[in-house]
Amino acid sequence: MSATDAKKVTHAQAAAFLRAEDDYLILAHASPDGDTIGATYALCLALHALGKRARVSCSDPIPPRYAHLEYPDDSAFEPRVIVSADIADTKLFGEANSIYANKVSLCIDHHPSNTLYAKQVLLVPSASSTCEVMVEVLKELGAEFTQAIADCLYTGMATDTGCFRYSNTSAKTLRLVAELMDFGAQTAAINKRLFETVSRQRLAVEELALQTMEYHLDGRFALVVISSDMREKTGAADSDMEGFASLPVRVEGVLVGVTIREKEDGVYKLSVRTNNGVDASEICAAFGGGGHAAAAGCKITGTLAEVKAAIIGVAKKALEK
Amino acid sequence: MSATDAKKVTHAQAAAFLRAEDDYLILAHASPDGDTIGATYALCLALHALGKRARVSCSDPIPPRYAHLEYPDDSAFEPRVIVSADIADTKLFGEANSIYANKVSLCIDHHPSNTLYAKQVLLVPSASSTCEVMVEVLKELGAEFTQAIADCLYTGMATDTGCFRYSNTSAKTLRLVAELMDFGAQTAAINKRLFETVSRQRLAVEELALQTMEYHLDGRFALVVISSDMREKTGAADSDMEGFASLPVRVEGVLVGVTIREKEDGVYKLSVRTNNGVDASEICAAFGGGGHAAAAGCKITGTLAEVKAAIIGVAKKALEK
Repeated sequence: MSATDAKKVTHAQAAAFLRAEDDYLILAHASPDGDTIGATYALCLALHALGKRARVSCSDPIPPRYAHLEYPDDSAFEPRVIVSADIADTKLFGEANSIYANKVSLCIDHHPSNTLYAKQVLLVPSASSTCEVMVEVLKELGAEFTQAIADCLYTGMATDTGCFRYSNTSAKTLRLVAELMDFGAQTAAINKRLFETVSRQRLAVEELALQTMEYHLDGRFALVVISSDMREKTGAADSDMEGFASLPVRVEGVLVGVTIREKEDGVYKLSVRTNNGVDASEICAAFGGGGHAAAAGCKITGTLAEVKAAIIGVAKKALEK
Repeated sequence: MSATDAKKVTHAQAAAFLRAEDDYLILAHASPDGDTIGATYALCLALHALGKRARVSCSDPIPPRYAHLEYPDDSAFEPRVIVSADIADTKLFGEANSIYANKVSLCIDHHPSNTLYAKQVLLVPSASSTCEVMVEVLKELGAEFTQAIADCLYTGMATDTGCFRYSNTSAKTLRLVAELMDFGAQTAAINKRLFETVSRQRLAVEELALQTMEYHLDGRFALVVISSDMREKTGAADSDMEGFASLPVRVEGVLVGVTIREKEDGVYKLSVRTNNGVDASEICAAFGGGGHAAAAGCKITGTLAEVKAAIIGVAKKALEK
């Protein structure tokens, strides 16, 4: 399947296709987040309610933080139609599901970077999340919005918008969430679980990382270091590290914020976040990395002191522009 | 004015009163938050647009974090009609404005605890915030929702709901916010300012406080200590301390979370927060304090070790119930 063959479809066309077929395998992306889990579960539940066979598949395990969502039953059947949700690129299928890369009949997504790998693509870049797109697909499908479905869709919309803090939250996003609340979505309980609760390990690693905070370039540059030692000492898992990359840039007056993570000996992975239009991808390009204007990453080899000096030097030039 | 004399009015009646009168003094509560500031500013701007004279008064200075809101011009006139917004009790007028305690013609509020001190009261306890009530008053008033007004009202609704995380966020709340976005409210910029940005001092005091975190009673109890020394060392102001009280109770598995703040020598102020129905006010009552079921406070005198032992002892009994 090449990008030029992909057919872009509307919500109504996607719903008509879903109504016409049966025996669905619904793919979530690897390293699953709330949006891909919420969108695939909700679609699966809605298809079941229409009397169809469907199951969700993800190459990686579902993180425990999403255990509040009802996992749609895995009935035994041979899938005939492959649908993907929130997967921008076949590279994100993960190892186990990579065999489906060229067999996707319908992809539902909101990422502008979608590579159009599927036969049909419902792509809505203005949507906050794939779950926002899915709300409208399920409406077209005539699905009953049970509480379980509303919880799934809410989870995806809330996680992709930082609980409606980020600029991808539109008036439409909020109106659709209001509808999910009318259908019984347990928003307060889900918010408490996803946005209020922290692990002991997270707080412990935060305490150690905060001790390494440094400010440079008249307070316009900040960095924190997360060493392998800190992870070992606190027992912090990858899931405990979410949101760390944005910590330094959140400090008042900081335009370039960098989180330096120690990888194997002498290799450091840097996450660069910027404010006020400073170009993070340009800073990272100096070290062979890349990304977006406000969020980019790179690897630097050397001692920690060398790594710090290198990134501060490049950030200084970027700030002088 | 006694509570029995107060007349409860509807949004439409409040609007009719505001349309009929002129020369308004609009009172915000002492230690002003986003809701009282947003509601009073928005009302003042709307009355100005209707050609009326109005100004806002607060006993305390407006915190810099709300400097993004347009301060309605202070025209020189002798006020004739006093309106209060988001003030549940005359005790909250503050010193400078206490002279108006018995002269309020209209109070607009959402606190169930409102003491009905005004001649007319528009009280909507189901509303997330006074700004949510004010949106509907201004609609009835036929005010044009300028961007400045939308920004004020959004600020109050976002701050009182923890940016739509708390259980006071209803479907109606989100639909009204969607309308404010249609009117140009700069939600993403306001969210970044209010919910993303942290001060250096805050992070510094957080680092020190996290070092004092203790878990007891099989992980169901957690405490942090904030000493006078930490405040001095970091230069943290009161405004840097927001949200600290809820830090320990956010930890996974914790049912009783306590923040212990050192006051004058040998006196400690405790904030107690609870999950799963454990009664915080009962815990605090054991030390002569009080509050709500999930959030209460008290003072304990003694050495820090004595204070810790005392609160852990009482929390243990509460957890055994």
